[in-house]
Amino acid sequence: MKNENFENIVIGAGSGGLTVAIGLAMQGKKVALIESNHVGGDCTNVGCIPSKTLIHLAANYQPGDDIGKILEKVTQKRDDLRIKETDEVGKIDNLHLIFGQARFTGPKMIRISSDDKPAREITGKNVIIATGARPRLLDIPGLPVDRMLTNESLFDITTIPDHLAIIGAGIIAIELAFAFRKLGTKVSLIALDPRALPTYSPDVSAAIQPELDKLGIETHYNATGDSFDESTHTLTIRSAQNTYPLNDVDKVLIAIGRIRNIDNLGLDSAGVLWGKTGIIVDGFGRTNVKGVYAVGDVTPTSAFTHSANAQGRRVVQKIAFPWLPLKKSEPLVPTSVFSDPEIATVGLSQSQINKKYHSNLIKSLRVDLKSLDRGYTDDVENGFIHVDVIRLTGRILGATIVGPRASEMISFFTLAISQKISLYKLFPLVYPYPTYSSGILDIADNYLKETLQNLPLELLNFLRYRLMK
Amino acid sequence: MKNENFENIVIGAGSGGLTVAIGLAMQGKKVALIESNHVGGDCTNVGCIPSKTLIHLAANYQPGDDIGKILEKVTQKRDDLRIKETDEVGKIDNLHLIFGQARFTGPKMIRISSDDKPAREITGKNVIIATGARPRLLDIPGLPVDRMLTNESLFDITTIPDHLAIIGAGIIAIELAFAFRKLGTKVSLIALDPRALPTYSPDVSAAIQPELDKLGIETHYNATGDSFDESTHTLTIRSAQNTYPLNDVDKVLIAIGRIRNIDNLGLDSAGVLWGKTGIIVDGFGRTNVKGVYAVGDVTPTSAFTHSANAQGRRVVQKIAFPWLPLKKSEPLVPTSVFSDPEIATVGLSQSQINKKYHSNLIKSLRVDLKSLDRGYTDDVENGFIHVDVIRLTGRILGATIVGPRASEMISFFTLAISQKISLYKLFPLVYPYPTYSSGILDIADNYLKETLQNLPLELLNFLRYRLMK
Repeated sequence: MKNENFENIVIGAGSGGLTVAIGLAMQGKKVALIESNHVGGDCTNVGCIPSKTLIHLAANYQPGDDIGKILEKVTQKRDDLRIKETDEVGKIDNLHLIFGQARFTGPKMIRISSDDKPAREITGKNVIIATGARPRLLDIPGLPVDRMLTNESLFDITTIPDHLAIIGAGIIAIELAFAFRKLGTKVSLIALDPRALPTYSPDVSAAIQPELDKLGIETHYNATGDSFDESTHTLTIRSAQNTYPLNDVDKVLIAIGRIRNIDNLGLDSAGVLWGKTGIIVDGFGRTNVKGVYAVGDVTPTSAFTHSANAQGRRVVQKIAFPWLPLKKSEPLVPTSVFSDPEIATVGLSQSQINKKYHSNLIKSLRVDLKSLDRGYTDDVENGFIHVDVIRLTGRILGATIVGPRASEMISFFTLAISQKISLYKLFPLVYPYPTYSSGILDIADNYLKETLQNLPLELLNFLRYRLMK
Repeated sequence: MKNENFENIVIGAGSGGLTVAIGLAMQGKKVALIESNHVGGDCTNVGCIPSKTLIHLAANYQPGDDIGKILEKVTQKRDDLRIKETDEVGKIDNLHLIFGQARFTGPKMIRISSDDKPAREITGKNVIIATGARPRLLDIPGLPVDRMLTNESLFDITTIPDHLAIIGAGIIAIELAFAFRKLGTKVSLIALDPRALPTYSPDVSAAIQPELDKLGIETHYNATGDSFDESTHTLTIRSAQNTYPLNDVDKVLIAIGRIRNIDNLGLDSAGVLWGKTGIIVDGFGRTNVKGVYAVGDVTPTSAFTHSANAQGRRVVQKIAFPWLPLKKSEPLVPTSVFSDPEIATVGLSQSQINKKYHSNLIKSLRVDLKSLDRGYTDDVENGFIHVDVIRLTGRILGATIVGPRASEMISFFTLAISQKISLYKLFPLVYPYPTYSSGILDIADNYLKETLQNLPLELLNFLRYRLMK
């Protein structure tokens, strides 16, 4: 058995792992990158790339288009990118791509095993765990395996289901519900949650629900799939004490959450601590064991590709440029959902604000997109920009956008919040007309009017409540 | 003849005039608002509102859809908004809407004449000229009046032309070329300019041209409409010394620029100065005559609704809150073109930068959208983000975006430039994945790498060239 030393060992070649491995290799550091399946991880293979391709093609779908070709294109683009990334990673100097299962045999010692090659053991000064997560499954008695889908199998289908039951109401469930419905599939969404996107604020769910309804996506909340009868293709739904049938179900997509890939890592051999929400890390991805890092879905970070990348970049900076004066706190991580309309948020959520500040210290401002001229020309019915600020100072704490281009609009607020730019400074800006962004002016305008007209009261509230909670 | 005194007289109820009139009335100031045609001006009646409605409907058009209904909807939405705005303006306290032609008879004296009412003369402490502009016409011998369209008549058509010739290659021409082509019309674009959107940088034209080509929009540059033969429906095109026929032309849309509505205002009686580019104003819309202001298209400002609004807001602030410490310079005005892909810019253009700074002081950074994962999933072929910065300091001077959502992305740069936020500060931000905005990170990343790797040279260049030109 070989026992080779690498300066850095990265376990997992998904978004987070690739960011670290490529980043370190580019700085001349020797890196072993271990992958048990495909380079690109979830994002390239079973996540963002195929799902956004599908969402794009579904948005442009016209009745009569060949759906087989659309599905083929999704698979093809996924495969092309996987091959390209694997090829590129293989060519990077200092980067050694090793396929196999990695398992700690000591704090800095990793055993790599695979079916077709003898096991090898490697050691490293730094080990970065980026093993990601996998879909949580749900046992639905009677449901044949070939009718069950997760995001891991979904993008290999070659025919479109007539009727797709989606279990779950989170981001993956909602994005795919919109996409498949646009392709003509009957979509039934079944979730134990009381509303769509339960991790977002209720006003987000309230804006998305009518859009689901409009497209004819059937939603069953406070409910789950109870059993399946293959002879009649009936999915029995259970809601509290009641059950009722959902007929003619072809496929069942399970999207009820994700499980971090921790169990088979041998973390005990390394002494790395983890909890219910993943491997415990600080703002630089450092675990409790010096030299052992973790990034991406395997940590408690938000499960977005961009947050895994951001974590990975900070690990690279910490390892390659330890003298850099980095901010201790992690940067603001926006969220985005590619539903229709899109959803994007950044900063503190409304519930986080409620916990941290007295409600009298906060001013919530909202503009509905339908009140804007762009909303009028584009027939927008639902969607809004919501901003929470500190009274008097106008300091922005958080922003939520539901609208056709929310994912591209949110970075404006990421910048504003990061740079501590108040609503007073957003007021003199000129926003192109007619855009949804011009709603930001309405928000700043309303804030200024309300504040200036009630200045003594605003000042009083600010002074009274600013230190409460 | 009545001779009534108003505190403020606003001539023209378009975007700029309405902003001033409503803004002042809301502050309790007595305002006369004089309009010779429709409330809402160009934007509501013959500009943004109907054109963006058409663009939106064209983008969602599917073969077989009833085009008559689409055109009807464009007209209907325009009419609905016109009625609503007229009604709302009529109800605002302190605001007196007067229909008629306004003409200065003295520095602060306006004579209002109309066909159906006796003329009246009113005086005011402040007079705000917001008379806008009208399309420049082109005489094409042989072309019957009912075949000629401008943006003023276009949105009243009830049947779609089979073949639309568009004279011009500016914003209106390009936006409408895309929209009509998507509705199935054969579109031929004929312009004296050497390229599409000649007021933008050549790389913008270079990104848009293949998109025009892809849709089958025929472009004839360095050319113009020479004559029309009604018996054969042939438009003869002249290019340099050559002429050639364009067959089966149904309608000719003239979009070759705009003429400011100055001639019939009697500006001489007021002593107000104007030049080739309109009424001369300072950063607060003030003309050479104290108390006489001008805003919007009648001034040399950029011909956008949002710039007219911004000017109008500053006039309101100057008149209603003269004690406010306003910045002397006008705010940054972004531009946007609702072509497909969209175009948006803010800050200094590349040619303005070339005039102002030594080329060695400037670093130009560009990322092509097709190199981004979002470009990959959405099959983007053309489009980019271009940013010009000062070497070493990373201060952003201008940004240009060509891409599907450019009009919503540009405000990020409006904020960054206004607040003097350098590329160094855009680098640690987290941008949602996969978005076009994530290209900003690539730009910041490239800038940092290039700068840090060549720090001595960068410093030298900065010191050597920063004061040149």
